[in-house]
Amino acid sequence: MTEARLDVLTIGNAIVDVIADATDSFLETEGLTKNSMRLIDAEEAERLYAHMAPAREVSGGCAGNTAAGIAALGGRAGFVGQVAPDQLGTFYRHDLTAAGVEFTTPALDVGVPTARSMILVTPDGHRTMNTFLGAAQHLPASALDEQQIRDSAAIYLEGYLWDPETPRYAMIRAIEVARAAGRKVAFTLSDTFCIERHRDGFNQLIDGGRIDILFANEAEIQALAGVPHLESAIEAVRGKVQTLVVTRGEKGALATHGSERADVPAEPVAEVVDTTGAGDLFAAGFLFGYTGGKSLKQSLRLGAIAAAEVIQHYGARPEADLKALAGELAA
Amino acid sequence: MTEARLDVLTIGNAIVDVIADATDSFLETEGLTKNSMRLIDAEEAERLYAHMAPAREVSGGCAGNTAAGIAALGGRAGFVGQVAPDQLGTFYRHDLTAAGVEFTTPALDVGVPTARSMILVTPDGHRTMNTFLGAAQHLPASALDEQQIRDSAAIYLEGYLWDPETPRYAMIRAIEVARAAGRKVAFTLSDTFCIERHRDGFNQLIDGGRIDILFANEAEIQALAGVPHLESAIEAVRGKVQTLVVTRGEKGALATHGSERADVPAEPVAEVVDTTGAGDLFAAGFLFGYTGGKSLKQSLRLGAIAAAEVIQHYGARPEADLKALAGELAA
Repeated sequence: MTEARLDVLTIGNAIVDVIADATDSFLETEGLTKNSMRLIDAEEAERLYAHMAPAREVSGGCAGNTAAGIAALGGRAGFVGQVAPDQLGTFYRHDLTAAGVEFTTPALDVGVPTARSMILVTPDGHRTMNTFLGAAQHLPASALDEQQIRDSAAIYLEGYLWDPETPRYAMIRAIEVARAAGRKVAFTLSDTFCIERHRDGFNQLIDGGRIDILFANEAEIQALAGVPHLESAIEAVRGKVQTLVVTRGEKGALATHGSERADVPAEPVAEVVDTTGAGDLFAAGFLFGYTGGKSLKQSLRLGAIAAAEVIQHYGARPEADLKALAGELAA
Repeated sequence: MTEARLDVLTIGNAIVDVIADATDSFLETEGLTKNSMRLIDAEEAERLYAHMAPAREVSGGCAGNTAAGIAALGGRAGFVGQVAPDQLGTFYRHDLTAAGVEFTTPALDVGVPTARSMILVTPDGHRTMNTFLGAAQHLPASALDEQQIRDSAAIYLEGYLWDPETPRYAMIRAIEVARAAGRKVAFTLSDTFCIERHRDGFNQLIDGGRIDILFANEAEIQALAGVPHLESAIEAVRGKVQTLVVTRGEKGALATHGSERADVPAEPVAEVVDTTGAGDLFAAGFLFGYTGGKSLKQSLRLGAIAAAEVIQHYGARPEADLKALAGELAA
């Protein structure tokens, strides 16, 4: 196996976040479940947008956020995702490229715009996502640069990619290429609703041994295992993957690798402004450490540091110097 | 004269701000003058954007910011400006409308996109603007709703509107309509470079008695008067307008009305994050007070409160509840 050119290549939905403040009663009126992500069509996107407060637009998307986080830590990151040839697509490419991420997937004109997620942030800092997938759902397997996959020490895929059929096939193909090249495959379960939608598919991937590193939060690992208890869920899943990473919000995070296990507390933060991207940046820190040969505990610490930075401001991409925040851990 | 339906109708360039952090050495390398605004063409916009850090997009434009500020204080505000039928134009209309501002100018398709200003924010919180005017420079006089102007207690115009010929004529027409209806005309000098570009035109407006309320900062009033001394500049200009408002950053602000004069200190702020919009929000507070029958001093206080809020976060539109911050002054 040749030396990897990239540490991590992430593959996911290329989404611009449209972030606005909202009250809890607004969520209630709109019938929205806090902290969840729902897919919406163009009509619902327009309707909801008309009700929303003034917004800011920042590039997002789980896998894109993770790639930006890895680059901010000093890692070599790439991203694969589909944008349209429009203003949002231009923003998206600019922001990733300016963050130091390799993003070469060509824009695709199939008559739908670049994806956007209307993210409602309540006063408690929690976010509720309403995603119009647009061009992102048209990522074809043919858009993959298979050499780029073979050149990456690990690929990282988001569960959300499973929602539409076209990128699902692209994801399955990417896993095949990575595994054939002896590379690691990392996967995040994305959210509990996503697990409900795709339980069989996810279980096939995991039970089939096609996932090396699995990321989940507390609710997700329990939903996947089908048990309402954290430790039981961990025990049920840890044997099916090489490495299992479970994030627990303000309660910290843990990881298992074979019989090994490490737990870390959350990093203290001054104020939680917007939790969007917390899981994505945790994955960034962990993967940066893991592919750099750090221990489980050190990798978890890197995840906690990156996640703590991103929840202290609006938007899901790092704004502070993550490399400096990580200090010797990122050296 | 009938009762006004709107307190203030602002007319200006409809611009989406593309905000990124930058170092002082980046400004130097790019040959940019801190705190200034320069107009750039599509080619330079693309070149600079490729060098810029990851950005956030928020609706801006001086007059739009002022209208949003007035609405946030509880005033009745309208905005006139030109956007294109594109994603940025959609953002722009959404944000103003969601802020409670009447914005009915139709989008115009002349093959150029909605304006954007690439705003570089240095660690000291100061901003340097690079504006691609796009559709904004195509605002025709025919797009004015003259009844809307007659229905507004005051109109507020930005000096930047003088840059391209088409909106310059729209502005002159708006002044005619407002004056014929006995309404007040307010005007901001925008920046010193703008004054250098249009000294004759601005002097004709002011000397011709077509401006009732003139807004300037310290550098601008001195540039207009052609004297390097604040009090001399104020004395030279105050007799030419009914009301003169001069903002002085952290040194506060002052206003004159005939022989009357009031001075107020700046509001204390915890941290200056981004000074973009400070002058626009000061104008919002002052105009809200002024059209509501407040004293010079009270109106200045409202300006100071609104400006203090906007410099404590990125972006030039208020995020906190300005009406609450202003307390009894906004009652």
